[in-house]
Amino acid sequence: MKLHGYFRSSASYRVRIALNLKGLTSEHLPHHLRKGEQCAPAYLAINPQGLVPTLESDAGAILTQSLAIIEWLDETNPNPPLLPKDPLRRAKVRAFAQAIACDTHPVQNLKVLARLRQLGLPEEQVTEWAAWANREGLAACETLIAEEAGPFCFGDQPTLADLCLVPQLANARRFGVDLSAYPRLLKAEAAAKQVKAFADAAPDKQPDAE
Amino acid sequence: MKLHGYFRSSASYRVRIALNLKGLTSEHLPHHLRKGEQCAPAYLAINPQGLVPTLESDAGAILTQSLAIIEWLDETNPNPPLLPKDPLRRAKVRAFAQAIACDTHPVQNLKVLARLRQLGLPEEQVTEWAAWANREGLAACETLIAEEAGPFCFGDQPTLADLCLVPQLANARRFGVDLSAYPRLLKAEAAAKQVKAFADAAPDKQPDAE
Repeated sequence: MKLHGYFRSSASYRVRIALNLKGLTSEHLPHHLRKGEQCAPAYLAINPQGLVPTLESDAGAILTQSLAIIEWLDETNPNPPLLPKDPLRRAKVRAFAQAIACDTHPVQNLKVLARLRQLGLPEEQVTEWAAWANREGLAACETLIAEEAGPFCFGDQPTLADLCLVPQLANARRFGVDLSAYPRLLKAEAAAKQVKAFADAAPDKQPDAE
Repeated sequence: MKLHGYFRSSASYRVRIALNLKGLTSEHLPHHLRKGEQCAPAYLAINPQGLVPTLESDAGAILTQSLAIIEWLDETNPNPPLLPKDPLRRAKVRAFAQAIACDTHPVQNLKVLARLRQLGLPEEQVTEWAAWANREGLAACETLIAEEAGPFCFGDQPTLADLCLVPQLANARRFGVDLSAYPRLLKAEAAAKQVKAFADAAPDKQPDAE
């Protein structure tokens, strides 16, 4: 398999963790987002949104959108599972993941921040926008798992929720968000950091890290 | 079941279509988003993001995030299926749905537009922001299904992709987007509009419609 990504892309980071947890190897093809490499025609031909990640399967299938890729990996390589078996628990894990992947990350991604700059917003306000999006999302996530014993987001094994949380916390730190208000999220992150699949997927461990 | 929603919320609209397709009845509890009713403490207690929809199951379970709700409905009420059986096709449908639910809708939702107004952007620029988010997302979606025969997004039956597309096109029209550039999306919408489950879920058919 080939994973088109970028070391700092939190959506790519989610998929890297999933691949590592499943014990799957893939060739990593970096696209430098800040240099606009994701908008090259050859890349747009496989990912018309100009976003990373994209996964190319061994059979040549093209998969886009990190959550769809991860569910595909989970359906085709069931062990270890990234979603619980119980439908209601699955819905809780997916809702947590989507609170990050739908309502937090896309509001603070590179494309949106670039648009804010185009509208003339000073850099300070652009960073505050990104921090705001992270605070809103993380505060909701903290509540969503407040009564979950853990140590991971949902139970004693990592799920799709942790795959979304850990990269988002990295983003939040980059934008200067004070994470002390989210002790339950930090507990889940601490559990994840003990797992090699998470550690190996970290941005600073990637070949294209700066 | 009880569905907390808002007639004009496209995420609520997605779930209304799913309920109708599954032949499930639910009590609709409207929360007037423009009056901020989704931020009332009683509602935040069940949906800490202050977003609609929220589904309360007959057993009293609380489900949030439209895509997670729809996958739960599909897992617990399998007919008619809203996702194909083949893992790769499922991934394609989910990726299309997420191109809308992650990268398009949240960038133009009420919360983001309100934030832009707070930053002092004139109404014209706020509307253009929303139109831009729709154009970006819909252009990608058009490409994602360009080679799909249809008439629905993926095949001859509605899937999760159509449940996301139809409400997003309604949003795009509200923001004045010229949809003539997306003939394949309009073909899927035309097919969906022939289905009573879609027609009955339309915003103007809801009791709280203005």
